[in-house]
Amino acid sequence: MYSVVVEHIYLLVLVTLISVLQNAFFALKVEKEGSSQNIPTSAFERVRCANRNCMDAYPTFLAVMWCAGLCLNQAPAAFAGIIYLVVRQKYFVGYMGQTSQSTPGYMFGKRILFFLLSMCIVGIFNYLLVRFYGSDYKEYVETITGAASALLLIP
Amino acid sequence: MYSVVVEHIYLLVLVTLISVLQNAFFALKVEKEGSSQNIPTSAFERVRCANRNCMDAYPTFLAVMWCAGLCLNQAPAAFAGIIYLVVRQKYFVGYMGQTSQSTPGYMFGKRILFFLLSMCIVGIFNYLLVRFYGSDYKEYVETITGAASALLLIP
Amino acid sequence: MYSVVVEHIYLLVLVTLISVLQNAFFALKVEKEGSSQNIPTSAFERVRCANRNCMDAYPTFLAVMWCAGLCLNQAPAAFAGIIYLVVRQKYFVGYMGQTSQSTPGYMFGKRILFFLLSMCIVGIFNYLLVRFYGSDYKEYVETITGAASALLLIP
Repeated sequence: MYSVVVEHIYLLVLVTLISVLQNAFFALKVEKEGSSQNIPTSAFERVRCANRNCMDAYPTFLAVMWCAGLCLNQAPAAFAGIIYLVVRQKYFVGYMGQTSQSTPGYMFGKRILFFLLSMCIVGIFNYLLVRFYGSDYKEYVETITGAASALLLIP
Repeated sequence: MYSVVVEHIYLLVLVTLISVLQNAFFALKVEKEGSSQNIPTSAFERVRCANRNCMDAYPTFLAVMWCAGLCLNQAPAAFAGIIYLVVRQKYFVGYMGQTSQSTPGYMFGKRILFFLLSMCIVGIFNYLLVRFYGSDYKEYVETITGAASALLLIP
Repeated sequence: MYSVVVEHIYLLVLVTLISVLQNAFFALKVEKEGSSQNIPTSAFERVRCANRNCMDAYPTFLAVMWCAGLCLNQAPAAFAGIIYLVVRQKYFVGYMGQTSQSTPGYMFGKRILFFLLSMCIVGIFNYLLVRFYGSDYKEYVETITGAASALLLIP
């Protein structure tokens, strides 16, 4: 039974592991910045704020990615998850820059979360269609989703 | 295999999606309040604090709701999740009110989380009973849980 | 179908429930400390900071534990989770101590998270081996993991 389960989630697990490693990287940055200076500086404040904003959005991201992967297909969900992690890395690095630089806002990766959210809705809608009408458009939907996930690469 | 999985979790996925939309609503409120005034005001502080308290409790809520839904039955768990989201909305709106108003405390929705927690415990206990004694009270338990979830509506 | 699912996750659910109870304990401490004094004191600041650090790491812990339990075996994952909760309790209590005492850093439980992370990687690697070569080392891997989890007890 295990192999059946792992077959459908191993890409999601991989993305989760990468996100955990990224979290550890962020936490190490915070710890290093906090311990190097005794007086809290603006650099420490910025790193701490960036880490907090990233952590605030982390459960939301995990929940949406796993729901999308379970309801529809794991490959586009994992791909969108990877893109999200890249965006988050850019956001964190951008926050650590100089103050003169335009600081990023509170939110990031809105487009990717919206894409994953619509994947969930399509998956549930497809399930209800199958249940009540017996017609299955799942293959078409998966093809369209796979093609649409390529659009996320456009900046 | 997918349809089998989706059949047992689609209500939970729906509640998760609604909670994600609510999170986005909270985050938009914080961003709007933060960008409109350059000087951090008490209104911004209050919104930020309310958002933080909600986000602190969010992973706990998700974990308990999914465990309850997987161990016992998804319908009462999803219903309790909806009630929790309504309570959270009230909490957030109440936090944004005037300072003269009685500010809500740090925690909220204790009763609902307690209900979900006891659902988990009942589910695991039921599984252990089935495993070691072979007697299955699952149907009775599900009926009782469904009836008990209506009690949550009482304020 | 439910019994099959619950059989493979019930230990993970139990550890999740214990962690939720611990979260509630932390939140009660914060609420009690915040309401007892009107003027924010250093004790309140410390409790709040400890709670925040614990909550920051909580989604990461949950994600890694569940992935490890699903990919490989639930028993070592749940055991490592219990150890993590003990470490977290010690961390929280240590934070509430006197200021003269050496305050703990930002991170804790690094070794346990690393152990769970490597469990995930071993599980996925094992799945890929089975898929492409047809050889299954899962039993050996599970024995080794079970033995290695005992090493976590060494302080």
